[in-house]
Amino acid sequence: MNLAIRQAVFPGGKRWRPALTLLGGGVTGARACDLLPPACAVEYVHTASLILDDLPAMDDAPIRRGRDALHRCFGDDLALLAALALLNRSYELFLLPLPGVLASRGALRLAAAAARAIGIDGMVGGQAADLSVATSRGALSTRQRKTTTLVRLAVTAGALAAGADDDDVSALGRYGECLGGAYQIYDDLMDESGDAAVTGKTVGQDMRHARQTWPVLLRTADARTQAAALVLRAQTAVTSRFGDRRDARLLVAFAELIVNTVGGAESASDARLAV
Amino acid sequence: MNLAIRQAVFPGGKRWRPALTLLGGGVTGARACDLLPPACAVEYVHTASLILDDLPAMDDAPIRRGRDALHRCFGDDLALLAALALLNRSYELFLLPLPGVLASRGALRLAAAAARAIGIDGMVGGQAADLSVATSRGALSTRQRKTTTLVRLAVTAGALAAGADDDDVSALGRYGECLGGAYQIYDDLMDESGDAAVTGKTVGQDMRHARQTWPVLLRTADARTQAAALVLRAQTAVTSRFGDRRDARLLVAFAELIVNTVGGAESASDARLAV
Repeated sequence: MNLAIRQAVFPGGKRWRPALTLLGGGVTGARACDLLPPACAVEYVHTASLILDDLPAMDDAPIRRGRDALHRCFGDDLALLAALALLNRSYELFLLPLPGVLASRGALRLAAAAARAIGIDGMVGGQAADLSVATSRGALSTRQRKTTTLVRLAVTAGALAAGADDDDVSALGRYGECLGGAYQIYDDLMDESGDAAVTGKTVGQDMRHARQTWPVLLRTADARTQAAALVLRAQTAVTSRFGDRRDARLLVAFAELIVNTVGGAESASDARLAV
Repeated sequence: MNLAIRQAVFPGGKRWRPALTLLGGGVTGARACDLLPPACAVEYVHTASLILDDLPAMDDAPIRRGRDALHRCFGDDLALLAALALLNRSYELFLLPLPGVLASRGALRLAAAAARAIGIDGMVGGQAADLSVATSRGALSTRQRKTTTLVRLAVTAGALAAGADDDDVSALGRYGECLGGAYQIYDDLMDESGDAAVTGKTVGQDMRHARQTWPVLLRTADARTQAAALVLRAQTAVTSRFGDRRDARLLVAFAELIVNTVGGAESASDARLAV
């Protein structure tokens, strides 16, 4: 199983979720070196969700991160256990108190937030919604929960671990939710029109599973406009709370990066008129 | 998914793990009414482990708790998600501070202990060991980890939540480990010779999966002797620390009950000579 876990975690993807944990903690004053446990935990949760998504019982996707999905290398059983081991290890890391931070103020709050993000109102519930072939817009928002709650967790995890005050965490949470929403739209677009060599995963999964995605509901151009508007709202949430602190500027730049890379040529500034 | 979770949890089994949580917390002075969250969490972890064990990717067992296994009613996907939801909910419950107990002294310690019991050194690691057709006694002890660490967690969870001191938790831990070890032996014996109508689950699973079980390694009589000796050690751990407090006497009686019901006609007192 150790081999399966290693293959799932390394070399891994773009690691932007744990990077957000470092930035979100950093903007509230925590040191990056203290934030490695929650950042790793966030990446473990994400990796576990990918393993589980790809299982034959779920999406049945053969490719992930540019190579065979984990269950194709190690079998469904070991892949499932590797995902459970990663999820569980993430709790162990979330529960580690940061130096100088009261556990009740930091670790405990973070672990509780993680449990909400992973559970039935977050990742697990979103996956269940994915399974049901839904036809309403409401179902789409349920589905979207999976991405947005995990991005929200990534952005707030460092701040929660560091015992940041509630207004800081709320601002980061809004940033994470909007960014996650935008990312979900772009990801749906990629799934529809993408190239497996670029995305590193099986394309056409949503269409094959007859899921309600943003491009199905909206014209592609409208979906892009909506995503860019979300990115702008994410940026505003951070700048209105943290001004132009270095890590705040990086969070703003990161959101722009999402538009320019995952989102293609459009930029958040084009969306300003549409907000 | 709510339906699947409901069916997995109700009417459920004998509920002896959460009963141990109440007794283990009670013997250290906590009130039963405060201990319901950790007790429920323990039952959820156990239920999740049963769902996962029974999946086609694992044991592929069709019967559990006297009816169709969850994946046979709801599909592999929903069964897997129900197990994840239960595991995750258990963390939420472990993280609830008890009235009047510092979170760092109670909830945080309990959640960290739960993470160790569930993770790669506990339930998940034990399940991985189950998968590999092992031939050595060492592999048996790895496999046994799954049962013993979860019983240990059940017995210590209430005391940890209540902020009990380390010596109390250690004594309860020894009780749980010995009791779990004895239970594993009896469960292996039931799997070999049992009746599905009594056990409520598929029999012959271990033999079918060519696992090293106690009855395979030892003559049945020797396995029974070993189990009874473990029960005696469990009882001694509790009485030497807690004397004859009411809940201590109940823990001792409970261990005797395990011998007399799961273990058949033998009793711990017969094993006294063999210790």
